[in-house]
Amino acid sequence: MTDRIGFIGLGIMGRPMARNLIKAGHQTTVWNRSRPGIEALIADGAEEAANPAEVARRSDLVITIVGDSPDVEEVALGPNGIIEGAHEGLVYIDMSTISPEVTRRISDRLSEANVAMLDAPVSGGDQGAIQGTLSIMVGGKDAAFERCRPVFEVLGKKVVHCGSSGSGQVVKLCNQVAVSLTNLAVCEALTLCRKAGVDPERMIEAVGAGAGSSWQLLNLAPKMLARDFAPGFKIDHQQKDLRHALATAEAIDLPLTGTSLVHQLFAAVQAEGLGGEGTQALVKAVEKLAALKA
Amino acid sequence: MTDRIGFIGLGIMGRPMARNLIKAGHQTTVWNRSRPGIEALIADGAEEAANPAEVARRSDLVITIVGDSPDVEEVALGPNGIIEGAHEGLVYIDMSTISPEVTRRISDRLSEANVAMLDAPVSGGDQGAIQGTLSIMVGGKDAAFERCRPVFEVLGKKVVHCGSSGSGQVVKLCNQVAVSLTNLAVCEALTLCRKAGVDPERMIEAVGAGAGSSWQLLNLAPKMLARDFAPGFKIDHQQKDLRHALATAEAIDLPLTGTSLVHQLFAAVQAEGLGGEGTQALVKAVEKLAALKA
Repeated sequence: MTDRIGFIGLGIMGRPMARNLIKAGHQTTVWNRSRPGIEALIADGAEEAANPAEVARRSDLVITIVGDSPDVEEVALGPNGIIEGAHEGLVYIDMSTISPEVTRRISDRLSEANVAMLDAPVSGGDQGAIQGTLSIMVGGKDAAFERCRPVFEVLGKKVVHCGSSGSGQVVKLCNQVAVSLTNLAVCEALTLCRKAGVDPERMIEAVGAGAGSSWQLLNLAPKMLARDFAPGFKIDHQQKDLRHALATAEAIDLPLTGTSLVHQLFAAVQAEGLGGEGTQALVKAVEKLAALKA
Repeated sequence: MTDRIGFIGLGIMGRPMARNLIKAGHQTTVWNRSRPGIEALIADGAEEAANPAEVARRSDLVITIVGDSPDVEEVALGPNGIIEGAHEGLVYIDMSTISPEVTRRISDRLSEANVAMLDAPVSGGDQGAIQGTLSIMVGGKDAAFERCRPVFEVLGKKVVHCGSSGSGQVVKLCNQVAVSLTNLAVCEALTLCRKAGVDPERMIEAVGAGAGSSWQLLNLAPKMLARDFAPGFKIDHQQKDLRHALATAEAIDLPLTGTSLVHQLFAAVQAEGLGGEGTQALVKAVEKLAALKA
């Protein structure tokens, strides 16, 4: 069965995701804040709506993947927002990474208008979006999740229903905590190896075979070595997510000393004007400390 | 071809390693600081020598896996040490994790007595030792490495020649840096998830499928959840290795802020008298901070 899908947010992630839905046979209506995103998708077979409310009116499911909490709030609840196009059976899926608390507030508000909402942030980067191999972490009610599962399966290879509203966002923040501290693990191991005069390729080979192995080591360490700092995922975006993780932890009285440190080290890279580089540029902060002391 | 192998240090790692060498057909002569280790190996078919010098005299290759730098120094260079049993063709392999600097000093001293030394610390824990699936990181000259390769292949599944003397130790320290910070990544992600009231099994499933995945996540997070703190690798031993990593970094003017933090957090667990627990008990330090603030 195919659905009429609305898709809002046609950036580096949203564009290939919407394209995969069109390819899977779903009639897709799009809206985006700027024109180029819309025109690319029209060329792929999407229809255009005038605003998020109209997207909602013309769709069974509406997906958003936009910037941060205020962007989601505006598209969902603002003037000409999704809530104004609410109708029987509409399900709203937000795939942005935003605050779990704001997510629950939006979900409650939509629920009063009889719109079910799922939070479904993703991991896997632009390559995962293009190939349809994202990890999707979903929060919200069972019935809405089951209703949307076939759509998630077009977009990702790993779909996990994490619990009630906001749980998808919490798990995504846990993911960012794990990713960032593991990234720092790689940066410090690699810099120690290089400064100690040992061949880092041998280190990656040996460490990658045992208890120190990680996705970050196997994928980012070779880029750090090659001084390839092109973004798979930008530091500026990682910092937004770490701010949400630290704020969420603070609200439940949980100090995260490691995450806090890596957030500051990323800030040192941003301070050099390099926030648009990939997260592997964290290694520059570790190297910078060495240079300062030397 | 089998060798006459001397094996010194019959603890939780050395005992199964020596046993695997006997099973592979090597005539094996053992020595240990205490009796129980020796008697277990004699039952397996090993011969006993009176001291390290006699082990060396009766062997083509001598392996040690003992505690820390001073233990290796004493067994290699002390009274009745390996150096006193030096003979044509003897190769000495130290598989303990010790200081790279001390390693190079011992290697230089042995070299004057025409004994080639390899540093070959291992990763993989007691299970890797029992199953012969250790990762072995080797420093030292090519000829000695090639001479000993068949023996390494009995003990491990991944054998990497990292470079000159001390390189094996440097790579092992990089491994411990990577392991420990990745462990902290897991502890913080897991504690955030639990305190935020989300099912951690779902988090492990979702994060384990993407860029936040690691050996530590897949192997230690389930133990943390089950409150199983039995040691695969003890915190006290990890702390010894992190001290070497930080000292090695300091000697080359490299601050490692993340490693330093995790070293302090492990110290907080040790302060509770829990240094004999496995490294997964690091999660207690993260939890302890939450309790203090609450």
